[in-house]
Amino acid sequence: MILHGYWRSGTSYRIRIALNLKGLDYQTAPVDLRTGAQKSDAYLALNPQGLVPALETGDGLVMTQSPAILEWLEEAHPAPALLPANAADRAVVRAMAALIGCDIHPLNNLRVLKAVRDLGADQAGVDAWAGRWITDGFAALEALVVRHGEGWCFGGAPTFADCYLIPQIYSARRFNVDLTPFPRLLEIEMRAEAHPAFIAAHPDNQPDAD
Amino acid sequence: MILHGYWRSGTSYRIRIALNLKGLDYQTAPVDLRTGAQKSDAYLALNPQGLVPALETGDGLVMTQSPAILEWLEEAHPAPALLPANAADRAVVRAMAALIGCDIHPLNNLRVLKAVRDLGADQAGVDAWAGRWITDGFAALEALVVRHGEGWCFGGAPTFADCYLIPQIYSARRFNVDLTPFPRLLEIEMRAEAHPAFIAAHPDNQPDAD
Repeated sequence: MILHGYWRSGTSYRIRIALNLKGLDYQTAPVDLRTGAQKSDAYLALNPQGLVPALETGDGLVMTQSPAILEWLEEAHPAPALLPANAADRAVVRAMAALIGCDIHPLNNLRVLKAVRDLGADQAGVDAWAGRWITDGFAALEALVVRHGEGWCFGGAPTFADCYLIPQIYSARRFNVDLTPFPRLLEIEMRAEAHPAFIAAHPDNQPDAD
Repeated sequence: MILHGYWRSGTSYRIRIALNLKGLDYQTAPVDLRTGAQKSDAYLALNPQGLVPALETGDGLVMTQSPAILEWLEEAHPAPALLPANAADRAVVRAMAALIGCDIHPLNNLRVLKAVRDLGADQAGVDAWAGRWITDGFAALEALVVRHGEGWCFGGAPTFADCYLIPQIYSARRFNVDLTPFPRLLEIEMRAEAHPAFIAAHPDNQPDAD
Protein backbone atom coordinates (compact mmCIF):
# COMPACT_ATOMS: atom_id res chain seq x y z
CA MET A 1 0.00 0.00 0.00
CA ILE A 2 1.07 3.59 -0.60
CA LEU A 3 -0.08 6.35 1.74
CA HIS A 4 -0.09 9.79 0.15
CA GLY A 5 0.00 12.27 3.01
CA TYR A 6 1.78 15.08 4.78
CA TRP A 7 3.79 14.67 7.97
CA ARG A 8 1.82 17.29 9.93
CA SER A 9 -1.63 16.54 8.50
CA GLY A 10 -3.83 15.23 11.28
CA THR A 11 -5.88 13.10 8.88
CA SER A 12 -2.72 11.47 7.45
CA TYR A 13 -1.48 10.87 11.01
CA ARG A 14 -4.75 9.03 11.83
CA ILE A 15 -4.22 6.59 8.99
CA ARG A 16 -0.56 6.01 9.87
CA ILE A 17 -1.58 5.05 13.42
CA ALA A 18 -4.24 2.62 12.18
CA LEU A 19 -1.91 1.02 9.62
CA ASN A 20 0.74 0.57 12.29
CA LEU A 21 -1.69 -0.79 14.89
CA LYS A 22 -2.80 -3.39 12.35
CA GLY A 23 0.81 -4.23 11.48
CA LEU A 24 0.34 -3.39 7.80
CA ASP A 25 3.32 -2.48 5.61
CA TYR A 26 3.01 0.67 3.53
CA GLN A 27 5.13 3.14 1.65
CA THR A 28 4.97 6.87 2.32
CA ALA A 29 4.44 9.26 -0.61
CA PRO A 30 4.83 12.80 0.78
CA VAL A 31 2.53 15.56 -0.50
CA ASP A 32 3.90 18.94 0.58
CA LEU A 33 0.83 21.03 1.46
CA ARG A 34 3.00 24.13 1.89
CA THR A 35 4.01 24.16 -1.78
CA GLY A 36 0.52 23.24 -3.02
CA ALA A 37 1.56 19.76 -4.18
CA GLN A 38 -1.98 18.56 -3.39
CA LYS A 39 -3.20 20.67 -6.34
CA SER A 40 -0.63 19.29 -8.82
CA ASP A 41 -1.93 17.44 -11.87
CA ALA A 42 -0.29 14.24 -10.70
CA TYR A 43 -1.99 14.32 -7.30
CA LEU A 44 -5.35 15.48 -8.66
CA ALA A 45 -5.31 12.46 -10.99
CA LEU A 46 -5.11 10.34 -7.85
CA ASN A 47 -7.56 12.32 -5.69
CA PRO A 48 -9.60 14.95 -7.59
CA GLN A 49 -10.52 16.66 -4.30
CA GLY A 50 -6.88 17.68 -3.82
CA LEU A 51 -6.79 16.77 -0.15
CA VAL A 52 -4.64 14.33 1.80
CA PRO A 53 -4.61 11.49 2.68
CA ALA A 54 -5.14 9.05 -0.18
CA LEU A 55 -4.36 5.36 0.20
CA GLU A 56 -3.47 3.18 -2.76
CA THR A 57 -4.41 -0.29 -1.64
CA GLY A 58 -2.33 -2.19 -4.20
CA ASP A 59 -5.26 -3.67 -6.12
CA GLY A 60 -5.95 -0.56 -8.18
CA LEU A 61 -8.13 1.17 -5.59
CA VAL A 62 -7.47 4.67 -4.31
CA MET A 63 -9.17 5.38 -1.01
CA THR A 64 -9.84 8.95 0.15
CA GLN A 65 -11.31 10.61 3.27
CA SER A 66 -9.80 9.32 6.50
CA PRO A 67 -13.10 8.17 8.13
CA ALA A 68 -13.83 6.03 5.05
CA ILE A 69 -10.25 4.70 4.92
CA LEU A 70 -10.40 3.67 8.58
CA GLU A 71 -13.68 1.79 8.11
CA TRP A 72 -12.23 0.06 5.03
CA LEU A 73 -9.08 -0.94 6.93
CA GLU A 74 -11.24 -2.42 9.68
CA GLU A 75 -13.27 -4.42 7.15
CA ALA A 76 -10.35 -5.57 4.99
CA HIS A 77 -7.91 -6.20 7.85
CA PRO A 78 -10.07 -6.97 10.89
CA ALA A 79 -7.31 -8.07 13.29
CA PRO A 80 -6.40 -6.51 15.58
CA ALA A 81 -9.81 -4.84 15.81
CA LEU A 82 -9.96 -1.06 16.24
CA LEU A 83 -13.70 -1.17 16.96
CA PRO A 84 -15.34 -3.03 19.86
CA ALA A 85 -17.23 -6.28 19.28
CA ASN A 86 -20.60 -4.90 20.43
CA ALA A 87 -22.68 -2.62 18.18
CA ALA A 88 -23.60 -0.19 20.97
CA ASP A 89 -19.94 0.08 21.95
CA ARG A 90 -18.94 0.65 18.34
CA ALA A 91 -21.41 3.54 18.26
CA VAL A 92 -19.65 5.12 21.25
CA VAL A 93 -16.21 4.80 19.62
CA ARG A 94 -17.53 6.20 16.34
CA ALA A 95 -19.19 9.07 18.23
CA MET A 96 -15.83 9.90 19.85
CA ALA A 97 -14.19 9.78 16.41
CA ALA A 98 -16.87 12.02 14.88
CA LEU A 99 -16.63 14.45 17.77
CA ILE A 100 -13.01 15.07 16.74
CA GLY A 101 -13.43 14.46 13.01
CA CYS A 102 -16.48 16.70 12.57
CA ASP A 103 -16.63 19.11 15.52
CA ILE A 104 -12.93 19.93 16.04
CA HIS A 105 -10.56 19.10 13.20
CA PRO A 106 -12.40 20.63 10.19
CA LEU A 107 -12.35 24.05 11.86
CA ASN A 108 -8.60 24.07 12.36
CA ASN A 109 -7.00 22.86 9.16
CA LEU A 110 -4.72 24.96 6.98
CA ARG A 111 -7.28 26.14 4.42
CA VAL A 112 -9.78 27.18 7.12
CA LEU A 113 -7.20 29.02 9.22
CA LYS A 114 -6.13 30.90 6.10
CA ALA A 115 -9.77 31.94 5.60
CA VAL A 116 -9.92 33.09 9.23
CA ARG A 117 -6.80 35.20 8.62
CA ASP A 118 -8.45 36.62 5.49
CA LEU A 119 -11.31 37.82 7.74
CA GLY A 120 -8.73 39.95 9.57
CA ALA A 121 -7.70 37.74 12.48
CA ASP A 122 -4.10 38.10 13.68
CA GLN A 123 -2.08 35.17 15.08
CA ALA A 124 -3.65 35.57 18.53
CA GLY A 125 -7.07 35.57 16.90
CA VAL A 126 -6.25 32.44 14.92
CA ASP A 127 -5.00 30.68 18.05
CA ALA A 128 -8.18 31.71 19.90
CA TRP A 129 -10.34 30.41 17.04
CA ALA A 130 -8.57 27.04 16.97
CA GLY A 131 -8.37 26.81 20.75
CA ARG A 132 -12.08 27.36 21.20
CA TRP A 133 -13.16 24.36 19.12
CA ILE A 134 -10.47 22.15 20.59
CA THR A 135 -11.37 23.10 24.18
CA ASP A 136 -15.12 22.65 23.64
CA GLY A 137 -14.65 19.28 21.97
CA PHE A 138 -12.04 17.97 24.39
CA ALA A 139 -14.31 18.84 27.34
CA ALA A 140 -17.02 16.62 25.87
CA LEU A 141 -14.54 13.89 24.99
CA GLU A 142 -12.96 13.92 28.46
CA ALA A 143 -16.41 13.17 29.93
CA LEU A 144 -16.89 10.27 27.52
CA VAL A 145 -13.44 8.86 28.33
CA VAL A 146 -14.17 9.09 32.07
CA ARG A 147 -17.25 6.94 31.40
CA HIS A 148 -15.84 4.48 28.87
CA GLY A 149 -12.03 4.50 28.98
CA GLU A 150 -9.74 2.11 30.79
CA GLY A 151 -6.37 3.42 29.67
CA TRP A 152 -7.41 4.35 26.16
CA CYS A 153 -10.45 6.32 24.93
CA PHE A 154 -12.67 3.25 25.04
CA GLY A 155 -11.64 0.27 27.14
CA GLY A 156 -8.11 -1.04 27.50
CA ALA A 157 -6.87 -1.13 23.90
CA PRO A 158 -6.55 1.49 21.14
CA THR A 159 -9.56 2.08 18.89
CA PHE A 160 -10.48 4.47 16.08
CA ALA A 161 -11.04 7.09 18.80
CA ASP A 162 -7.35 7.06 19.76
CA CYS A 163 -6.36 7.27 16.08
CA TYR A 164 -8.27 10.58 16.05
CA LEU A 165 -7.30 11.82 19.51
CA ILE A 166 -3.51 11.65 19.37
CA PRO A 167 -3.20 13.76 16.19
CA GLN A 168 -5.70 16.25 17.64
CA ILE A 169 -3.61 16.60 20.81
CA TYR A 170 -0.51 17.14 18.66
CA SER A 171 -2.41 19.92 16.85
CA ALA A 172 -3.66 21.42 20.14
CA ARG A 173 -0.09 21.76 21.38
CA ARG A 174 0.87 23.66 18.21
CA PHE A 175 -1.93 26.15 19.02
CA ASN A 176 -0.74 26.39 22.65
CA VAL A 177 -4.07 25.13 24.00
CA ASP A 178 -4.11 24.56 27.76
CA LEU A 179 -4.72 20.82 28.13
CA THR A 180 -4.58 20.63 31.94
CA PRO A 181 -8.43 20.43 32.19
CA PHE A 182 -8.28 17.08 30.35
CA PRO A 183 -6.25 14.70 32.55
CA ARG A 184 -7.73 11.53 31.04
CA LEU A 185 -6.81 12.66 27.52
CA LEU A 186 -3.28 13.45 28.71
CA GLU A 187 -2.98 9.96 30.20
CA ILE A 188 -3.79 8.55 26.78
CA GLU A 189 -1.17 10.81 25.21
CA MET A 190 1.44 9.46 27.66
CA ARG A 191 0.45 5.90 26.82
CA ALA A 192 0.73 6.63 23.09
CA GLU A 193 4.19 8.15 23.58
CA ALA A 194 5.36 4.70 24.73
CA HIS A 195 3.50 2.66 22.09
CA PRO A 196 5.51 1.63 18.99
CA ALA A 197 2.59 2.05 16.55
CA PHE A 198 1.97 5.62 17.73
CA ILE A 199 5.69 6.47 17.90
CA ALA A 200 6.26 5.33 14.30
CA ALA A 201 3.24 7.38 13.17
CA HIS A 202 4.37 10.61 14.86
CA PRO A 203 4.92 13.54 12.46
CA ASP A 204 8.54 13.97 13.56
CA ASN A 205 9.30 10.41 12.46
CA GLN A 206 8.09 10.82 8.86
CA PRO A 207 10.50 11.10 5.91
CA ASP A 208 9.12 14.53 4.91
CA ALA A 209 9.38 16.06 8.42
CA ASP A 210 11.25 19.36 8.74
CA MET B 1 -37.11 5.31 19.26
CA ILE B 2 -37.03 9.02 20.06
CA LEU B 3 -35.06 11.41 17.87
CA HIS B 4 -34.02 14.60 19.63
CA GLY B 5 -33.31 17.14 16.91
CA TYR B 6 -34.14 20.45 15.32
CA TRP B 7 -36.14 20.85 12.13
CA ARG B 8 -33.45 22.83 10.30
CA SER B 9 -30.40 20.99 11.66
CA GLY B 10 -28.67 19.22 8.80
CA THR B 11 -27.43 16.44 11.05
CA SER B 12 -30.94 15.79 12.41
CA TYR B 13 -32.28 15.80 8.85
CA ARG B 14 -29.72 13.09 7.89
CA ILE B 15 -31.01 10.78 10.60
CA ARG B 16 -34.66 11.40 9.73
CA ILE B 17 -33.95 10.37 6.12
CA ALA B 18 -32.18 7.17 7.20
CA LEU B 19 -34.91 6.22 9.70
CA ASN B 20 -37.56 6.76 7.02
CA LEU B 21 -35.63 4.86 4.34
CA LYS B 22 -35.39 1.91 6.72
CA GLY B 23 -39.08 2.18 7.57
CA LEU B 24 -38.41 2.63 11.28
CA ASP B 25 -40.98 4.29 13.54
CA TYR B 26 -39.76 7.06 15.79
CA GLN B 27 -41.01 9.97 17.82
CA THR B 28 -39.70 13.50 17.35
CA ALA B 29 -38.49 15.45 20.40
CA PRO B 30 -37.76 19.00 19.22
CA VAL B 31 -34.74 20.85 20.64
CA ASP B 32 -34.99 24.54 19.75
CA LEU B 33 -31.42 25.62 18.95
CA ARG B 34 -32.51 29.26 18.71
CA THR B 35 -33.49 29.39 22.39
CA GLY B 36 -30.46 27.38 23.54
CA ALA B 37 -32.54 24.33 24.52
CA GLN B 38 -29.54 22.15 23.61
CA LYS B 39 -27.75 23.60 26.67
CA SER B 40 -30.64 22.96 29.09
CA ASP B 41 -29.99 20.63 32.03
CA ALA B 42 -32.54 18.15 30.68
CA TYR B 43 -30.87 17.90 27.28
CA LEU B 44 -27.33 17.88 28.68
CA ALA B 45 -28.31 14.92 30.84
CA LEU B 46 -29.13 13.13 27.59
CA ASN B 47 -26.18 14.38 25.53
CA PRO B 48 -23.45 16.13 27.54
CA GLN B 49 -22.01 17.64 24.36
CA GLY B 50 -25.15 19.77 23.97
CA LEU B 51 -25.50 19.15 20.25
CA VAL B 52 -28.28 17.59 18.18
CA PRO B 53 -29.16 14.96 17.16
CA ALA B 54 -29.44 12.32 19.87
CA LEU B 55 -31.30 9.09 19.30
CA GLU B 56 -32.87 7.13 22.16
CA THR B 57 -33.02 3.59 20.84
CA GLY B 58 -35.61 2.29 23.31
CA ASP B 59 -33.29 -0.11 25.11
CA GLY B 60 -31.70 2.50 27.34
CA LEU B 61 -29.08 3.62 24.83
CA VAL B 62 -28.61 7.22 23.75
CA MET B 63 -26.74 7.54 20.47
CA THR B 64 -25.00 10.78 19.51
CA GLN B 65 -23.08 12.09 16.48
CA SER B 66 -24.88 11.51 13.18
CA PRO B 67 -22.08 9.49 11.48
CA ALA B 68 -22.07 7.07 14.43
CA ILE B 69 -25.89 6.90 14.52
CA LEU B 70 -26.03 6.08 10.80
CA GLU B 71 -23.49 3.25 11.14
CA TRP B 72 -25.42 1.89 14.13
CA LEU B 73 -28.72 2.02 12.20
CA GLU B 74 -27.09 0.09 9.36
CA GLU B 75 -25.80 -2.56 11.77
CA ALA B 76 -28.95 -2.88 13.87
CA HIS B 77 -31.45 -2.56 11.01
CA PRO B 78 -29.60 -3.80 7.91
CA ALA B 79 -32.55 -3.88 5.49
CA PRO B 80 -32.90 -1.97 3.30
CA ALA B 81 -29.15 -1.43 3.13
CA LEU B 82 -27.83 2.14 2.91
CA LEU B 83 -24.30 0.93 2.15
CA PRO B 84 -23.29 -1.19 -0.88
CA ALA B 85 -22.49 -4.88 -0.47
CA ASN B 86 -18.86 -4.56 -1.59
CA ALA B 87 -16.19 -3.15 0.76
CA ALA B 88 -14.55 -0.98 -1.89
CA ASP B 89 -17.95 0.48 -2.83
CA ARG B 90 -18.74 1.10 0.82
CA ALA B 91 -15.50 3.09 1.03
CA VAL B 92 -16.67 5.31 -1.85
CA VAL B 93 -20.05 5.97 -0.21
CA ARG B 94 -18.39 6.71 3.13
CA ALA B 95 -15.92 9.03 1.38
CA MET B 96 -18.85 10.94 -0.15
CA ALA B 97 -20.47 11.14 3.28
CA ALA B 98 -17.26 12.36 4.91
CA LEU B 99 -16.72 14.91 2.15
CA ILE B 100 -19.96 16.54 3.25
CA GLY B 101 -19.79 15.63 6.93
CA CYS B 102 -16.20 16.81 7.48
CA ASP B 103 -15.29 19.21 4.65
CA ILE B 104 -18.55 21.16 4.22
CA HIS B 105 -21.09 20.94 7.03
CA PRO B 106 -18.90 21.65 10.10
CA LEU B 107 -17.87 25.01 8.62
CA ASN B 108 -21.44 26.22 8.15
CA ASN B 109 -23.35 25.38 11.30
CA LEU B 110 -24.89 27.95 13.61
CA ARG B 111 -22.10 28.13 16.20
CA VAL B 112 -19.39 28.52 13.55
CA LEU B 113 -21.27 31.17 11.57
CA LYS B 114 -21.74 33.10 14.80
CA ALA B 115 -17.96 32.95 15.33
CA VAL B 116 -17.43 34.21 11.76
CA ARG B 117 -19.75 37.14 12.52
CA ASP B 118 -17.79 37.80 15.71
CA LEU B 119 -14.66 38.19 13.51
CA GLY B 120 -16.44 41.10 11.82
CA ALA B 121 -18.07 39.48 8.79
CA ASP B 122 -21.38 40.99 7.64
CA GLN B 123 -24.19 38.91 6.10
CA ALA B 124 -22.52 38.98 2.66
CA GLY B 125 -19.28 37.84 4.27
CA VAL B 126 -21.05 35.02 6.09
CA ASP B 127 -22.75 33.90 2.86
CA ALA B 128 -19.39 34.00 1.06
CA TRP B 129 -17.77 31.94 3.83
CA ALA B 130 -20.50 29.30 3.71
CA GLY B 131 -20.72 29.34 -0.06
CA ARG B 132 -17.02 28.73 -0.52
CA TRP B 133 -16.94 25.45 1.40
CA ILE B 134 -20.18 24.26 -0.18
CA THR B 135 -18.99 25.07 -3.72
CA ASP B 136 -15.56 23.47 -3.23
CA GLY B 137 -17.06 20.32 -1.75
CA PHE B 138 -19.93 20.02 -4.21
CA ALA B 139 -17.48 20.30 -7.14
CA ALA B 140 -15.59 17.28 -5.81
CA LEU B 141 -18.81 15.40 -5.05
CA GLU B 142 -20.28 16.10 -8.51
CA ALA B 143 -17.21 14.42 -10.05
CA LEU B 144 -17.66 11.38 -7.80
CA VAL B 145 -21.37 11.14 -8.67
CA VAL B 146 -20.58 11.34 -12.39
CA ARG B 147 -18.32 8.33 -11.86
CA HIS B 148 -20.43 6.28 -9.45
CA GLY B 149 -24.04 7.48 -9.54
CA GLU B 150 -26.94 6.01 -11.45
CA GLY B 151 -29.75 8.23 -10.23
CA TRP B 152 -28.52 8.60 -6.68
CA CYS B 153 -25.03 9.48 -5.37
CA PHE B 154 -23.85 5.88 -5.67
CA GLY B 155 -25.73 3.48 -7.92
CA GLY B 156 -29.49 3.33 -8.34
CA ALA B 157 -30.73 3.44 -4.73
CA PRO B 158 -30.26 5.87 -1.82
CA THR B 159 -27.22 5.39 0.43
CA PHE B 160 -25.63 7.22 3.35
CA ALA B 161 -24.28 9.67 0.77
CA ASP B 162 -27.79 10.83 -0.15
CA CYS B 163 -28.69 11.15 3.55
CA TYR B 164 -25.86 13.70 3.75
CA LEU B 165 -26.37 15.36 0.36
CA ILE B 166 -30.04 16.36 0.53
CA PRO B 167 -29.71 18.30 3.83
CA GLN B 168 -26.55 19.97 2.49
CA ILE B 169 -28.39 21.10 -0.65
CA TYR B 170 -31.19 22.47 1.57
CA SER B 171 -28.55 24.43 3.50
CA ALA B 172 -26.87 25.64 0.28
CA ARG B 173 -30.15 27.13 -0.88
CA ARG B 174 -30.50 29.06 2.38
CA PHE B 175 -27.07 30.62 1.68
CA ASN B 176 -28.09 31.41 -1.93
CA VAL B 177 -25.31 29.25 -3.37
CA ASP B 178 -25.40 28.89 -7.17
CA LEU B 179 -25.98 25.19 -7.73
CA THR B 180 -26.15 25.24 -11.55
CA PRO B 181 -22.55 23.90 -11.83
CA PHE B 182 -23.74 20.67 -10.19
CA PRO B 183 -26.38 19.13 -12.50
CA ARG B 184 -25.96 15.59 -11.17
CA LEU B 185 -26.51 16.75 -7.60
CA LEU B 186 -29.62 18.66 -8.70
CA GLU B 187 -30.97 15.51 -10.38
CA ILE B 188 -30.67 13.73 -7.04
CA GLU B 189 -32.46 16.61 -5.33
CA MET B 190 -35.34 16.27 -7.83
CA ARG B 191 -35.52 12.53 -7.20
CA ALA B 192 -35.58 13.11 -3.43
CA GLU B 193 -38.41 15.64 -3.81
CA ALA B 194 -40.56 12.79 -5.12
CA HIS B 195 -39.44 10.13 -2.62
CA PRO B 196 -41.70 9.60 0.44
CA ALA B 197 -38.80 8.98 2.88
CA PHE B 198 -37.11 12.24 1.88
CA ILE B 199 -40.39 14.19 1.80
CA ALA B 200 -41.30 13.09 5.33
CA ALA B 201 -37.81 14.04 6.53
CA HIS B 202 -37.88 17.56 5.04
CA PRO B 203 -37.53 20.38 7.60
CA ASP B 204 -40.83 21.96 6.55
CA ASN B 205 -42.65 18.75 7.47
CA GLN B 206 -41.41 18.58 11.06
CA PRO B 207 -43.64 19.42 14.06
CA ASP B 208 -41.28 22.20 15.21
CA ALA B 209 -41.03 23.92 11.80
CA ASP B 210 -41.81 27.64 11.69
